[in-house]
Amino acid sequence: MTASTASPVPSVNRQFVLAARPVGMPKESDFSLVEAPIPALASGQILLHSTYLSVDPYMRGRMTGIRTYADPVNIGQIMVGGAVGKVVQSLNPQFQPGDIVSGYWGWQEYAVSDGKGLQKLDARLAPPSTALGVLGMPGMTAYFGFLDICEPKPGETVLVSGAAGAVGSIVGQIAKIKGCRAVGVAGTDDKVAWITRELGFDAAFNYKTTENYVEKLKELCPSGIDCYFDNVGGAVTDAVLPLLNVRARISICGQISQYNSAKPEPGVRPYAFLLTKQARAEGFIITQFMDRFAEGIAQMAQWIKEGKIKYRETIVEGFENMPRALIGVLQGDNTGKMVVAIR
Amino acid sequence: MTASTASPVPSVNRQFVLAARPVGMPKESDFSLVEAPIPALASGQILLHSTYLSVDPYMRGRMTGIRTYADPVNIGQIMVGGAVGKVVQSLNPQFQPGDIVSGYWGWQEYAVSDGKGLQKLDARLAPPSTALGVLGMPGMTAYFGFLDICEPKPGETVLVSGAAGAVGSIVGQIAKIKGCRAVGVAGTDDKVAWITRELGFDAAFNYKTTENYVEKLKELCPSGIDCYFDNVGGAVTDAVLPLLNVRARISICGQISQYNSAKPEPGVRPYAFLLTKQARAEGFIITQFMDRFAEGIAQMAQWIKEGKIKYRETIVEGFENMPRALIGVLQGDNTGKMVVAIR
Repeated sequence: MTASTASPVPSVNRQFVLAARPVGMPKESDFSLVEAPIPALASGQILLHSTYLSVDPYMRGRMTGIRTYADPVNIGQIMVGGAVGKVVQSLNPQFQPGDIVSGYWGWQEYAVSDGKGLQKLDARLAPPSTALGVLGMPGMTAYFGFLDICEPKPGETVLVSGAAGAVGSIVGQIAKIKGCRAVGVAGTDDKVAWITRELGFDAAFNYKTTENYVEKLKELCPSGIDCYFDNVGGAVTDAVLPLLNVRARISICGQISQYNSAKPEPGVRPYAFLLTKQARAEGFIITQFMDRFAEGIAQMAQWIKEGKIKYRETIVEGFENMPRALIGVLQGDNTGKMVVAIR
Repeated sequence: MTASTASPVPSVNRQFVLAARPVGMPKESDFSLVEAPIPALASGQILLHSTYLSVDPYMRGRMTGIRTYADPVNIGQIMVGGAVGKVVQSLNPQFQPGDIVSGYWGWQEYAVSDGKGLQKLDARLAPPSTALGVLGMPGMTAYFGFLDICEPKPGETVLVSGAAGAVGSIVGQIAKIKGCRAVGVAGTDDKVAWITRELGFDAAFNYKTTENYVEKLKELCPSGIDCYFDNVGGAVTDAVLPLLNVRARISICGQISQYNSAKPEPGVRPYAFLLTKQARAEGFIITQFMDRFAEGIAQMAQWIKEGKIKYRETIVEGFENMPRALIGVLQGDNTGKMVVAIR
């Protein structure tokens, strides 16, 4: 079988590997840009050229060297992550050059794949980059992590931290679709304006310019908090506890405020609040819902079509900016989903 | 209608009222022993003589003046609590002098009741004091709070704090009935010996003489912790978090280590652990299971009959010792259920 090829096949790949385990916030020097040969394809393989690479807060955890729910990235290994790319060469009858696919091949310009775990994308239905955002892992994280863990009911108050991020911005909009009051916590005034004016959150505040979180939450959540979708943790979460309603549900999606702490900073233990309010806090990992992604993606696509879900992407240009983009996500530079575009 | 009377009707009642809101551990001077006249019965009423009064950790919360899931006891009000007593006089056709009943009439030697909320007890089936313990609120707290919130599965490891108390001692035994490994945390060597040698816990340790809780828990729970039934909170709970297994369940029953703190002491926030382990922490109040008590009491009575559940009572003699008994419970002086017996 002769490889079908769309364009001249390059011989050199560029990859980012982990150079050092970060202490605190990752630095660009914790990553190393290396060149690697692109091997000739074996039968059944395809060569992919990355067009969009994902940077997500969870990646910080993979850099620590501690196994949690997933294996860590070891020093010298390619950084993991979701990706969208184009088939440039194929020895696999299921893929043709020019096909656009999403997968999980990490921080590299090219990847050789046997096709397993790849999803073909139809660029006429949605921009391919959405496979890394609203129609991908972050969107599904919002959909299942909110609906399944929080079980929101009409009229309830839903608080979302990291509310202008790839996940939080979707959670608040789903809360509105479900008839809830949606309140957001975000880190800039522009983000607050975006989620309240464009996305339909009922209220939001900038935690970086707010002194007393408990007082602000009391003002914005006058009927208390029934559901808390937490991406952030730390002092915001501490302030939520006294405002929980009876039988409140906390969905623990992320703890981005803590990811760069060398050791966990002490805070408020939630147990007495959970006890007196008969409330529940539950963590989840999106992979636990993997077998229901088709359902979630179909519903999300429908809501987007109906104008009920809006999304935004923060696009960084250039493969060499991957480390800077991840650092940006960890610092909250993004509004909506952060992706790196590669030409 | 003439009142039917078993014995001479006394004219003076003794009651304990709240004298001061405690700061830290309650003192005897926070309670005041007062005398009150016993009124003549109206039609439909009965006069009860208390034979056993309950002292339970939750009472500390009622003394704070803060409404949580129940109204606080105000200064000058009779302390609340479960009680067992004998009908001494009746103008209610449903009760006869000599009947033994349980109810919730608080810290007083006599009580006038219209019969609502009283349960008749059959002393031939179980000692009446068990209506305050294994066949009462603490037993039901163990039964529903463990089975419904933790949903234990055979082969799982169940850790119980306050494991020699009225609730914890039952939880560990139910864990064994359900085929789990039961591990307890208690506050004296005698308690540790009792729960391991007599109640069938697989292992236990004395937290007051153990330096490193994490290391001890690793030793006693080599397969990690699937269910944690928490009566105590604080440093023990902090140490449990790193040992949680995937999809672990924490049932938050009590936080006795924190009840006397003026303000919550900072500790380890559990969210990152709950997230990476997809675990759940849930608080409950026993009243949420009230409509299923008949089921729970029947099952518990059956297990006692079969010798699968053992219980112990720590009995303090004399009404005047109520405050000392409650202080004792808060200090962990009891093994099993603490009750005050009144002649």
